[in-house]
Amino acid sequence: SRELFVLTYGALVAQLCKDYEKDEDVNTCLDRMGYGIGIRLIDDFLARSAVKKCRSYSETADMIAQVAFKMYLGVTPSVSCSSAAGNEFSLILDKNPLVDFVEELPAERASLCYCNLLCGVIRGALEMVHLAAEVTFLQDRLKGDAVTEIGITFLRKTEDRKHKRN
Amino acid sequence: SRELFVLTYGALVAQLCKDYEKDEDVNTCLDRMGYGIGIRLIDDFLARSAVKKCRSYSETADMIAQVAFKMYLGVTPSVSCSSAAGNEFSLILDKNPLVDFVEELPAERASLCYCNLLCGVIRGALEMVHLAAEVTFLQDRLKGDAVTEIGITFLRKTEDRKHKRN
Repeated sequence: SRELFVLTYGALVAQLCKDYEKDEDVNTCLDRMGYGIGIRLIDDFLARSAVKKCRSYSETADMIAQVAFKMYLGVTPSVSCSSAAGNEFSLILDKNPLVDFVEELPAERASLCYCNLLCGVIRGALEMVHLAAEVTFLQDRLKGDAVTEIGITFLRKTEDRKHKRN
Repeated sequence: SRELFVLTYGALVAQLCKDYEKDEDVNTCLDRMGYGIGIRLIDDFLARSAVKKCRSYSETADMIAQVAFKMYLGVTPSVSCSSAAGNEFSLILDKNPLVDFVEELPAERASLCYCNLLCGVIRGALEMVHLAAEVTFLQDRLKGDAVTEIGITFLRKTEDRKHKRN
């Protein structure tokens, strides 16, 4: 059952808002925590999903949306590719279970990315399968947008970068 | 899936350990957060479990163990009554999913009640159905005990106390 998780997540965000005055610092902290979770969660994900290795960024994005989100949050975002280069994707959430108990952000927290932990989780998990990515919220219903949109930009592969540096 | 919750809970405890030097303060904070969660979670619980009103402390303790723990944590503690007066109960957990990713408490955190949020949740939820209770960890496998044991002591009913005060 998700409710205990969702409320506990709310308590975490509230605590960070007490700890840090600036929204940016809360966002960074949530992302960093999420990263730490993602690098551990990936083992659980691979073991339980029994998915095969993805052969493209597009397959990876679909996997995150259709298998990982479904497994951990019980929802399936839609996926769209947003760059000609084929390395930028959007996960569109009509419904975001993490904000079930949040009515709206307080006025003084207008820049808070409430669910920023998720970005860190995705980034951390991808890194463990050797995919570097930038993950950020592009739209957020909590901020009055029509949908919640998470942007994933796959970066040059780690191996390529190492190769280049050498 | 529970793993994201369990890891997020770990991040919350870690953050509180950063915030507060004393274990007692972390424990208090977790209990207080749990309380805030419990008073909101009870509506979800009553709606989804469709349970009937309990007629005794014993029924209430069984309900917490067999329905609520099962629903939110996926485990069913055993219940024992530990007082002749019939108002003290123990929930015994052979397995505590909240500590799945915790190997052991750091030496400097020997008094930490890692799962103290749960006590607060139970206390808060009970209060919303007009049952005052003290809820504490009596044993904890993280501290080397053979099992994890949560003690619930039902106090005089709120109404009785009000009555007495007037």
